[in-house]
Amino acid sequence: MDIIDVHCHVVPESLPSAPAASPESRWPCVCHDSNDRATVTVGKKPFREIDHRSWDLSVRLRDMDATSVIRQVLSPMPELLSYWFTPNNGREMCRWMNECIADMVAQRPDRFSGLGIVPLQDPALAAAELSAIADAGLAGVELGSNINGKFLGDTDFREFFAEAERLNLCIFVHAIHPIGADRLKQMPELVPFAAFPLDTALSAMSLIRAGIPERHPTLRLAFSHGGGAIIPLAHRLARGAELTKHFGGDLTKSPTEYAAKFFYDSLVYDHDYLAFLANSFAPGQVFCGTDYPYPIMESDPAEFIATAALTNHESVRNGAALRFLGSQTMT
Amino acid sequence: MDIIDVHCHVVPESLPSAPAASPESRWPCVCHDSNDRATVTVGKKPFREIDHRSWDLSVRLRDMDATSVIRQVLSPMPELLSYWFTPNNGREMCRWMNECIADMVAQRPDRFSGLGIVPLQDPALAAAELSAIADAGLAGVELGSNINGKFLGDTDFREFFAEAERLNLCIFVHAIHPIGADRLKQMPELVPFAAFPLDTALSAMSLIRAGIPERHPTLRLAFSHGGGAIIPLAHRLARGAELTKHFGGDLTKSPTEYAAKFFYDSLVYDHDYLAFLANSFAPGQVFCGTDYPYPIMESDPAEFIATAALTNHESVRNGAALRFLGSQTMT
Repeated sequence: MDIIDVHCHVVPESLPSAPAASPESRWPCVCHDSNDRATVTVGKKPFREIDHRSWDLSVRLRDMDATSVIRQVLSPMPELLSYWFTPNNGREMCRWMNECIADMVAQRPDRFSGLGIVPLQDPALAAAELSAIADAGLAGVELGSNINGKFLGDTDFREFFAEAERLNLCIFVHAIHPIGADRLKQMPELVPFAAFPLDTALSAMSLIRAGIPERHPTLRLAFSHGGGAIIPLAHRLARGAELTKHFGGDLTKSPTEYAAKFFYDSLVYDHDYLAFLANSFAPGQVFCGTDYPYPIMESDPAEFIATAALTNHESVRNGAALRFLGSQTMT
Repeated sequence: MDIIDVHCHVVPESLPSAPAASPESRWPCVCHDSNDRATVTVGKKPFREIDHRSWDLSVRLRDMDATSVIRQVLSPMPELLSYWFTPNNGREMCRWMNECIADMVAQRPDRFSGLGIVPLQDPALAAAELSAIADAGLAGVELGSNINGKFLGDTDFREFFAEAERLNLCIFVHAIHPIGADRLKQMPELVPFAAFPLDTALSAMSLIRAGIPERHPTLRLAFSHGGGAIIPLAHRLARGAELTKHFGGDLTKSPTEYAAKFFYDSLVYDHDYLAFLANSFAPGQVFCGTDYPYPIMESDPAEFIATAALTNHESVRNGAALRFLGSQTMT
């Protein structure tokens, strides 16, 4: 039992009440249907059916024991990222989530690590929250692939990344509200099944182009779903960099070199692609991620990793995760 | 000398005058700066610097001879696709382009094949043009990855694909005006260098979801730039298909099976990714494409293909292209 699952989500048993002073049309609520089942509503409309795996550590531990997962890195369900609220309301939701996750980690620090969230719709406010996140014992933060439509390479976010590096907090970028969604009204299921990986990859390209990994070489940045579509994009951007003399000198290395130093999870649903990502594109930088406890999750990560033709299985099982989290040991 | 280059573009030496009756703000013009250089303007603003390789067959033949290319499959520069004009104006531009390309092919049918374009902003009008395209000796049509924001899987385009299959015309889908462009104003170079492959891949997913390859098994569909981001998307969509019982029974096979029967060009700028695409993801379905004569082109396709660890080099050099074009022989 030695797998560290860096991509798995939490919804707490309850969420703060909708703010009375400045109402938010998309405020979420956990409406319990029974002891072990609930509906997350967003703006009073059903958003997702969940069950006690989302909030009950004992159930998680039972599932972890059954799937060789020694440690889960808990992060909020992305729809709770709260970028679409006023900065103050967003901060209140983030603080609630961060306390909830820090509490879970404190109960079983041998089995759980945690990632917090920040109100990045106000980058200065978000940066100011990072010290509290570090002090609470969280390993880093989960970010959306875009902040209300702004990719992470936007100049607005520069100081935030500098502060995250200064505090040695890792960053896990997860797809949310992706590009293309407005064009998929005839087939809305393509938004999660197909557009998510696009947004993640384009956000990663924007970070490279903006020089974030260039200026912050010790900042540990990870991308969900195997980086989404990052492999073909990085090679094309590398050709673009050749043609533009590295974007007029903005970068000193090829985009593929920065991309090879990002971290990625293993949630790609194909052994061959996982092996290509982990052996060839970003050796040593791929860790296990399952999307537990959602239907699309990789339900047997040990088997999935074991049957991929990896040059280094241990790195995907836990080695890369330990380096991403900034830890030296498994527990 | 046996390479067939299926991805290379033409701009004719001149374009029709802007329509006086119904003016179009984005009408293109080829403004000659010298004998061998010109500027394509769109709506009177410079769009792209080009040179005589775009229109002069003798120059193309010299370059082909120097790079082992026995045959080019000529297609219009994508900005000439003209979906953004009135249907009648679009049809006029398409007919001009199709005549131009058919003339080029007629001059050297031993060295050139051609793809036409259609006014797909009016699907019935576009379908009606297909007979003339077949009669002119063109092998098929080039389509944009979206038609004014509608992906190709949109229900509007069903009859068009049925007619293309009936006439045995192949279809080459090329990225244009991609999703995400509106979010990349701070780094506009990411639109061609990073967002193009996303639009192509999402369009391909929309076709699969819409059942186009399911209903038209003999329709030959190809996607530019190695299908863009298709590999990671297809695997995620396959997982989505499992979760939804193949989208409520709309499909009989996994999305990866349909994707494995699409054609892709080799324009991926990385040997390892090319080998993964051609050996593992879509065996037998990858043909050479260079983007000649633009700066981002693969300038030495013979070397690029030869140095990739392919299980079947000949298929990428010409075998897949011949099947895509519906030809049995090289010349």
